[in-house]
Parts: sequence; structure tokens; C-alpha cells
Amino acid sequence: MTIIECAEYLREKDNYLILTHSRPDGDTLGSASALCRALRAFGKTAYLYENPQITSKHLSYTSDLFAPQSFKADCRIAVDIADVGLLPLGFLGRADLGIDHHASNTHYIENMLLLSGKASCGEIVFILIKQLGVEIDKTIADALYVAVSTDTGCFQYANTTSETLRAAAELFDLGADTVKLNKMYFRTSSEARLKLEGEIFSTLRSLHGGKVSIAVITLQMLEECGVTEDDCEDLAALSGRMEGAVVSVTVRQIAKSNCRISVRSMPEFNANKICQRFGGGGHAMAAGCNIFASPEVAVQMLLKEIEECWE
Amino acid sequence: MTIIECAEYLREKDNYLILTHSRPDGDTLGSASALCRALRAFGKTAYLYENPQITSKHLSYTSDLFAPQSFKADCRIAVDIADVGLLPLGFLGRADLGIDHHASNTHYIENMLLLSGKASCGEIVFILIKQLGVEIDKTIADALYVAVSTDTGCFQYANTTSETLRAAAELFDLGADTVKLNKMYFRTSSEARLKLEGEIFSTLRSLHGGKVSIAVITLQMLEECGVTEDDCEDLAALSGRMEGAVVSVTVRQIAKSNCRISVRSMPEFNANKICQRFGGGGHAMAAGCNIFASPEVAVQMLLKEIEECWE
Repeated sequence: MTIIECAEYLREKDNYLILTHSRPDGDTLGSASALCRALRAFGKTAYLYENPQITSKHLSYTSDLFAPQSFKADCRIAVDIADVGLLPLGFLGRADLGIDHHASNTHYIENMLLLSGKASCGEIVFILIKQLGVEIDKTIADALYVAVSTDTGCFQYANTTSETLRAAAELFDLGADTVKLNKMYFRTSSEARLKLEGEIFSTLRSLHGGKVSIAVITLQMLEECGVTEDDCEDLAALSGRMEGAVVSVTVRQIAKSNCRISVRSMPEFNANKICQRFGGGGHAMAAGCNIFASPEVAVQMLLKEIEECWE
Repeated sequence: MTIIECAEYLREKDNYLILTHSRPDGDTLGSASALCRALRAFGKTAYLYENPQITSKHLSYTSDLFAPQSFKADCRIAVDIADVGLLPLGFLGRADLGIDHHASNTHYIENMLLLSGKASCGEIVFILIKQLGVEIDKTIADALYVAVSTDTGCFQYANTTSETLRAAAELFDLGADTVKLNKMYFRTSSEARLKLEGEIFSTLRSLHGGKVSIAVITLQMLEECGVTEDDCEDLAALSGRMEGAVVSVTVRQIAKSNCRISVRSMPEFNANKICQRFGGGGHAMAAGCNIFASPEVAVQMLLKEIEECWE
């Protein structure tokens, strides 16, 4: 589907239920809310499916849009959902229309607007709303800014393009409260999360002359910091913050003798190869596995494999 | 001066020495390097004054531009320098032309291109280079991206406008290596800095139901983490990362019984009032002072004053 075809489709139908992916993030929720509000402004009936995994940080711009029990949808739109297995928990039907930017999209819906060159689904929804001719108010601009900025790490990740930056500029001009949103999503964390980051950085290990960084997160650390699941988002990225690291490993204890391992690497090292040795896998620069041992033993096992793969 | 007048001035003169401010940051250095390279591309002779306080992070795009001892300048350009007192260490002459974006600029140079609405000096130099008609290559685009992104905290600070984002988009299209630069300036830190952040977050104190956050940085912490002066940039911002904090205090020990205090606040609390009570001052939302006591005593003294000011 093209943008024009998708807009035409939306003009023709009504009674929309908008779906966000499991473990929803700012892009799926921001895009879905913006689309929902735009459809309403266009005179349609539209609601968000109440994703049971939504975290408190994202309730402020979504909760007033949740569909009531009694709502009967005629068209279900999957936003930012790459595969049928990522449909939200508790949703049993099937989607009629998909809007997505993931190159890995499995084309599980016949009507699919897929633009895989876009850094965020928010950028696609933004263009789509303009195509519909809906006036974009501050609330819609805020939701789209959440989508665009969170999926690019506030314009820092490698997926960011000049189109992303220009979309953000337009949203700023449309009244998005970028100062408030940047503070909320990028510049502040809960006290528990900060304490946990503190513990992780304090105990970060640097090996092989700084080429390998290892973060160990024990159950005891999680308990002592009092973190919730919300606070544990993207912990695997922290060990990669060490300058000069070629391989960044995160060992997160999930039971006494079970650790979830995440390995991220620069192009010169194959993270996948390490994780395959422990029955896991992933991509060349980001992979994962489980090691059924204590964190200390897991670290030693990983170091041995990293050393062998290095040669 | 207008952009057009400034470009005319640069076209007429030659033999430029470009000055950066004391304790130079990415904006002054990125703007100065970009201008220097653009003037050379325009056929002029131009060098950077070798600012003795430049940190290693900024040498890669500046060091090949430093003026040799023998260079005799006909025109000295002060870039991003708001006052004569901020001219670089060791520079004894006076500047002939100023290019700046600080509203606090004291107009200490007759020829001053001052655009105080711009988030960064880099945005002004970018427009100026385009006005000169110089083709912007990747090296110039990189330097301007450093300027624009570092002065806005990678587009997160309140000074960021849609013009900043559009400038960044243009620089991306001109070939700026935004992935490499974002990683270097925003996504990685030295091991020593990470350890120090770890210690600071681990010991961060939350008071008054989370409305007050206090970070304490002792001489012992600095020593144990092995930080250099480079690693200590912007430490006063860390306590403000706690969600919900209205007043964020940083107590940095600089001698056994001497602490440098930094207080930052939300609009509802006057940081200046607290600091004035200890003989310091600043702005309503960011102020500083010294307390001649140990960190622990300083914290108690500050808490008492904060409590009184709150009522």
C-alpha cells in the first residue's frame, strides 16, 4: 500500500480499533494515539486497544483513548507491529490494516503500509495524517514527537536520518512540548533506576585493555535498588557506554543459577558467535543467550569464549 | 552586524586568527574550525589560536588548524565569546570581529555579529558560510554538527528550536558523520567517568518525598575513580536527573573543608536565594556558592536553608 492508498482506505471505513505491539514503546503508542486522535478529528470513531503491558510513563497521552468493553470495531489497525506474534497480549482477533517501518515485517496483513526506510513508525503516521488533511494540534504533535524521538534515542541512534530531524522540526513548529517530553523520556529517571545505574557503573568491569566491558546485574542489586519492571528497560545498553569497548556484555541474573546474557559489539567482533556457543543467537552486532550458572561463573565462561573468538 | 555585512567583512580582509573561549566546548571549537576551513576554501589564510585548555575529545577536528608561532594575523575573530574576560588563556591582543549567540554578550568588539535567538554559535557560522558561497564538505559539516549538537545536549535542552533541528538535518545531508559523533559526544564516556557517575548515583540522596535530590562528590571518590579534569565536565547536572526533583543540589568537595555547591531548581523554587545565604548567587533556576566545611556538614547546612526557603 502507498500512503495515498492507505489514506483512501481510512477515509472509506469507520469504527477503528488501533493495536500497539506487545511490550509497547513510545513509537507504537505515540503513533497509535496520534492516529486515533487524527481519525476522530476526521469524524471517525476510533479507540486504542488497552494494551495490558503499557507502562506508567506512557499513560498520560493514551489512557483517555482506550476502547470501552462495549466497543465493536469494524477495522483493526496494527501500528508498528512487525509480526502476528507481536500483537498485544489478550487480543484474539486479526488485524485488517498494518502501518509499519520494520524491515523484518512478515506481511501478515494483506493491507500493509510498510516504509522500512523510516526510523520510526511515527514518521509514517505523520505523513499519513497530513495526507488525510487533518489539522495537527498540540496533542497530536506531542504524541508524534514521543514516537519519533524515542525510537531514535532522541536522534542519536544510527537509524536517524535528515527526514527524522525535519519531522521533529515540523512537530516543534506545530506546538509539541519538546522541552517537557525530552525531560520526561531522556533526561530524568526514577530514583530506583538511577541507583541501579549507579550500581551497574560502579561495578562495570573493563578487560582486554578496555576492549571488553562487562556489566553484572544481580538479583540482590535489583532488590536493593527497589526497581520495578519499568525501571529495567534497556539495561543491556549500559555496558556499551564505555568508551573504546568493542564487545559489551550484560549478565543479568534472573534466578540463583540462571543468567540472561546480552552481547553487543562493534563490526570487528561477532556477538552472535559467542551466544551460539551457549545455545543462543541473534545478529552479528547484538545477540543473547542464557547461561545456567551464577553471575560470577557466567562471567568466567563468557570471558573464556570471548578470548577464543578473538583469536 | 548582519550576516551579509559579516560575510562582506570576511571577503575583504585576510590572515585570520580565530579565537575560542576559555574552557572551550564543542560549540566554540566546532564553530571556529568550520569557519577556519571555510575561509581557507574561500582562498584566505586562516588559523585557530591554540587554546591551551582544549580537551582531548576535541583535538581530532581542531589540531591541524592551530596557528604556527610565526603567524602574523591581520584580523582576530572571537567565536562564541560573550565577554572580553572569556578570551582564551594566553591571548593578549584584542579581537577585531565577534560572532556570537549569547544574550549576555557585552559588545566588547565593535564588529559583532550577534544572533541571540540561536541555540548555538554553530547555527550562525553555518548560515555565514553559506552566505560566503563556500561549498560545505564533510569535514566542515562534521565540525558544525559538533557545535550544534553539543550546545543543545543533542537537541534535548530548552534552547533547541526547529531551526536547530533543520540545521542538523542539512548537515546530515551534507555528509556529517552523525552516528560517529553522537556516539563520541553523547553515548560513551571514559571508564573513570562512568565509575564516578556510578558512585554519584549510588549515593544520591532523595529528601522531602523526592522533591530534593543531593549528590555528594568527595575528594576520595574523585581519587578512587581516577578521573581527570576532562571527566568532570557538567557533574552538576547529574543530581537533576532524578524524576520529580524540584531542587537538585551538588556538593563537590574541593578541599578538606571546602565544598563547591551548585543548586538547580524548577521555576517554583529559587536556587539563587539559597546560594545568596552562603555568599554566592546566580540565576533563579541555577546558582552556586562555596561552603567552607566538610561535605557532610555542608549537606546539613544546605538542607536547613532549603527547608526554611520552602516555607
